[in-house]
Amino acid sequence: MKVGFIGLGAMGSAMASNLIKAGHEVTVWNRSPGPTAPLASLGAKVVKSADRAAQGEMLFSMLANDQAVRSVFFDDGLLDGMDKGTVHINHATISVALAGEMAAAHAARGLDYVAAPVFGRPDVAAAGKLNILAAGKPHVIERVRPLLDAMGSRIWPLGDAPERANVVKIAGNFMIGAAIESMAEASALTRAHGVSAAEFLDVMTSTLFAAPVYQGYGKLIAESRYTPAGFALPLGYKDVGLALAAADATRVPLPLAGLLRDSLLEALSSGEEDVDWSIMAQVAARRAHLDDRGL
Amino acid sequence: MKVGFIGLGAMGSAMASNLIKAGHEVTVWNRSPGPTAPLASLGAKVVKSADRAAQGEMLFSMLANDQAVRSVFFDDGLLDGMDKGTVHINHATISVALAGEMAAAHAARGLDYVAAPVFGRPDVAAAGKLNILAAGKPHVIERVRPLLDAMGSRIWPLGDAPERANVVKIAGNFMIGAAIESMAEASALTRAHGVSAAEFLDVMTSTLFAAPVYQGYGKLIAESRYTPAGFALPLGYKDVGLALAAADATRVPLPLAGLLRDSLLEALSSGEEDVDWSIMAQVAARRAHLDDRGL
Amino acid sequence: MKVGFIGLGAMGSAMASNLIKAGHEVTVWNRSPGPTAPLASLGAKVVKSADRAAQGEMLFSMLANDQAVRSVFFDDGLLDGMDKGTVHINHATISVALAGEMAAAHAARGLDYVAAPVFGRPDVAAAGKLNILAAGKPHVIERVRPLLDAMGSRIWPLGDAPERANVVKIAGNFMIGAAIESMAEASALTRAHGVSAAEFLDVMTSTLFAAPVYQGYGKLIAESRYTPAGFALPLGYKDVGLALAAADATRVPLPLAGLLRDSLLEALSSGEEDVDWSIMAQVAARRAHLDDRGL
Amino acid sequence: MKVGFIGLGAMGSAMASNLIKAGHEVTVWNRSPGPTAPLASLGAKVVKSADRAAQGEMLFSMLANDQAVRSVFFDDGLLDGMDKGTVHINHATISVALAGEMAAAHAARGLDYVAAPVFGRPDVAAAGKLNILAAGKPHVIERVRPLLDAMGSRIWPLGDAPERANVVKIAGNFMIGAAIESMAEASALTRAHGVSAAEFLDVMTSTLFAAPVYQGYGKLIAESRYTPAGFALPLGYKDVGLALAAADATRVPLPLAGLLRDSLLEALSSGEEDVDWSIMAQVAARRAHLDDRGL
Repeated sequence: MKVGFIGLGAMGSAMASNLIKAGHEVTVWNRSPGPTAPLASLGAKVVKSADRAAQGEMLFSMLANDQAVRSVFFDDGLLDGMDKGTVHINHATISVALAGEMAAAHAARGLDYVAAPVFGRPDVAAAGKLNILAAGKPHVIERVRPLLDAMGSRIWPLGDAPERANVVKIAGNFMIGAAIESMAEASALTRAHGVSAAEFLDVMTSTLFAAPVYQGYGKLIAESRYTPAGFALPLGYKDVGLALAAADATRVPLPLAGLLRDSLLEALSSGEEDVDWSIMAQVAARRAHLDDRGL
Repeated sequence: MKVGFIGLGAMGSAMASNLIKAGHEVTVWNRSPGPTAPLASLGAKVVKSADRAAQGEMLFSMLANDQAVRSVFFDDGLLDGMDKGTVHINHATISVALAGEMAAAHAARGLDYVAAPVFGRPDVAAAGKLNILAAGKPHVIERVRPLLDAMGSRIWPLGDAPERANVVKIAGNFMIGAAIESMAEASALTRAHGVSAAEFLDVMTSTLFAAPVYQGYGKLIAESRYTPAGFALPLGYKDVGLALAAADATRVPLPLAGLLRDSLLEALSSGEEDVDWSIMAQVAARRAHLDDRGL
Repeated sequence: MKVGFIGLGAMGSAMASNLIKAGHEVTVWNRSPGPTAPLASLGAKVVKSADRAAQGEMLFSMLANDQAVRSVFFDDGLLDGMDKGTVHINHATISVALAGEMAAAHAARGLDYVAAPVFGRPDVAAAGKLNILAAGKPHVIERVRPLLDAMGSRIWPLGDAPERANVVKIAGNFMIGAAIESMAEASALTRAHGVSAAEFLDVMTSTLFAAPVYQGYGKLIAESRYTPAGFALPLGYKDVGLALAAADATRVPLPLAGLLRDSLLEALSSGEEDVDWSIMAQVAARRAHLDDRGL
Repeated sequence: MKVGFIGLGAMGSAMASNLIKAGHEVTVWNRSPGPTAPLASLGAKVVKSADRAAQGEMLFSMLANDQAVRSVFFDDGLLDGMDKGTVHINHATISVALAGEMAAAHAARGLDYVAAPVFGRPDVAAAGKLNILAAGKPHVIERVRPLLDAMGSRIWPLGDAPERANVVKIAGNFMIGAAIESMAEASALTRAHGVSAAEFLDVMTSTLFAAPVYQGYGKLIAESRYTPAGFALPLGYKDVGLALAAADATRVPLPLAGLLRDSLLEALSSGEEDVDWSIMAQVAARRAHLDDRGL
């Protein structure tokens, strides 16, 4: 199938490459041209403007945030330039508010729209094993499903309204942040009693918490290894902000999200940006002055 | 081997029965006599005072809390009545402070002591599949290991100082509480946006959070099924209190534990005691008036 | 002096009337014309567009929020229509971000600008006894001081950069919210022990906390009298949001602001909007189920 | 009148001296004899055991905390040695739980008991200007009132049950802690925007918050002057603990008290004990790395 893919960060590049490997004819675009070369070598057609990538049957996009999505689709006018038959599959983690705007804007132009945020890091994307949330009209989802299958190990249909997929993604990332904070505080507590984070988290992540999130972040915390960032601190902060914004819109108190906000702000205020958001464990330890006390 | 077992609640009874099934000669005692009958029918010898259960090579105890442990071992004088060769294996979830007192009191009397709190509910205990934390002198742990193996699927040695096992147990239960609160808030948020707790938690607990804790409590939350209590609200509140007490003793701020305390207090203040502590999800939903709003 | 005044809510009307009473020639404008009549009867000239109110030496504005300020000054083009010599005195409680934008936009157009948010409710404004924060160029503040004196009992110069006055206003309102929450929780605690909020707050606000904020809100809490709203719940929520936004911009963790956010959201989620923000006391009492328990 | 006074810290000494100056015959005792000399020089009779101070018509006590009260009245048997006619006026800040125990223990022995915790620091006590809360039988309070008047500027009768006075004292101290935290966070926020704590707090404590608590602690925060301690950090932490314990006993969520607990723990974990509890302002600034950023 002829499709376009725009937004070629680590995630987008890995996802697009899987579409190519599955035999699709993929036209790619990225604002900065750097990431297009490896895809070109796999057979992608590289174009110089987003609208030229949008001329196939489907357009996949994996842009960084609300601002990037607004910039490309609204400000640069991509939405107005798309053909009626085209389906847009939006993989970005965006706000519930923008999700609703996007849904309406596509509908108003007769464009099909699927919100399809994903769970998984770049290595998971490269392996084609993402979990893909998908909300949109059922028959449209069925049409794109074979392509999603090329990128993910499982597709999770979440109903018609696109923003439903986005709120699940946002709530899910909030849960990841909560898991990190709970390991951060719990291991500060055990350290203060002479049990290292490594010893403690080894027990927990081998038993009750034997799940990818805990094992992945638990390892980083156990080793105090916050660079290179798997998921960078500013992104984690942004995502907690999306949860708080979604909570604001529907009047839902989220005390734990507020707590995450403060832990992340405390980390950010030290000027560290290029670190993994599990740096929250360092914040929890610093609040207890564990290093100063030789604990 | 001739051993004693005292404290025959749901957990203790299941654990003692596995010792019997493994061929040990088990003498049992419980303050209220009710729970002894099923064990007697398996072959246990039932005695009327704790000290008579303490006359074998080892004494296992699974009492409810600090107060019960103090009452039996200190106030009733059991500790003073034990023979020097006896090993006491204490499975109770007790405070770090009492753990330290117990360690010292045993040492002062020449008694061997192993702190061996467990992770797992009664059904896991019945299946002999507990995770058993174990702290005490290595050669003593090695001596009791065959009996622990009859009760658990894995033993986690945690060093010499008994309180190390207790702080790991306490920090672990705090992490469970945090996991529940995060599901509670996250699913309040998705509900407010039209995605039911069941839909949302199905995705999360099948993917990133595919771990026993999330799957077990997630199911309760998805179904709003808080009775019968798997782990009762007052016990969860007690355990968060143990975490806060351990944090107090070593000057470790634990904002997330404070937040759990308030959610649990809010549930308790309504007078509900005989419910599972995942009732925190109802608290989160009530704070957002979701039911009142038909969400 | 010939001056303009736009934004004639309860606060703005009271402030404008004091300028008139002080002998100034005041031209007024409000988006909805209702509030202009009483001022006309005092001698104000009423105009139908904001730019016609901006033709005197000074323009005072008291608009509701960021959105209203943006709408009038940027979207409707008022800023572009003002004469170079004009001073704009902005009394609105706006975000630090917008404060900075406004300062720059005025500077770029050669307009003098004073940020002059106020502390005090409508009755205080009517009595000409506001506390007026003022930031801007010293000689400009001196020029407007006689007019500010007609509206306030004291002017607090806060330096050159306009946003300095706004952050003080925002931080001050956050402190008011904190004072309310502390009375809310403290009196929930005393009620649970048999001491009514009225008894308790009478002691506190007559002694250690004998200050206007505590006496005013304490009375509302003691009497559970949340309507009519002195300062409406949605405004309080907006102002806590301004504090959180200012904290976000400069990476300052504000756990207490997060806590206020959640208390206010909990009140808002019940659908109550037309109540005083001291309704937080009802939230604190409800969390403890005090009414249900007859406490 | 012949009365006794035990517990001669800074507060107790100042209070006892005012009883002496009012013409009463005062017998004093303190566990460590140091503080008795100045009182002896004013005319106090110094005795070597608490029970000899308890032989007048009234016994005033101002002991440090629950432990000291238990030690003297229960463990050392003072309560059993008092004559039936004696009234005990207990000024200590103790837990609601102990307050209830004390009330019952006095009643069981036919002793009259008044709980009379005070608001005010040593300098206020020396000036005889304390605010004295008083709970107990009305006729007993009337009997002791002339002596309370010698020590305080105002007596606040709070009903029959002694613990009512204690919960008011505890809730009041919690409100003071909340006031400090709110100044701490608010001034961290203004500092980050270029307005010093001194500038900001000068405005606030001269206007809306013109109350003793804000002016006193505001000055310490503005000057970063945390030694010598007016009210020491560990005492503040103890008092927040009393609020949390009272909340626990009656199932009242107190999120703001939990937040104070963590701020105080963070300060304590750095090893600082001999500082004023307004050191919370330093904690708030450190969380935002304000000093590191030169803000």
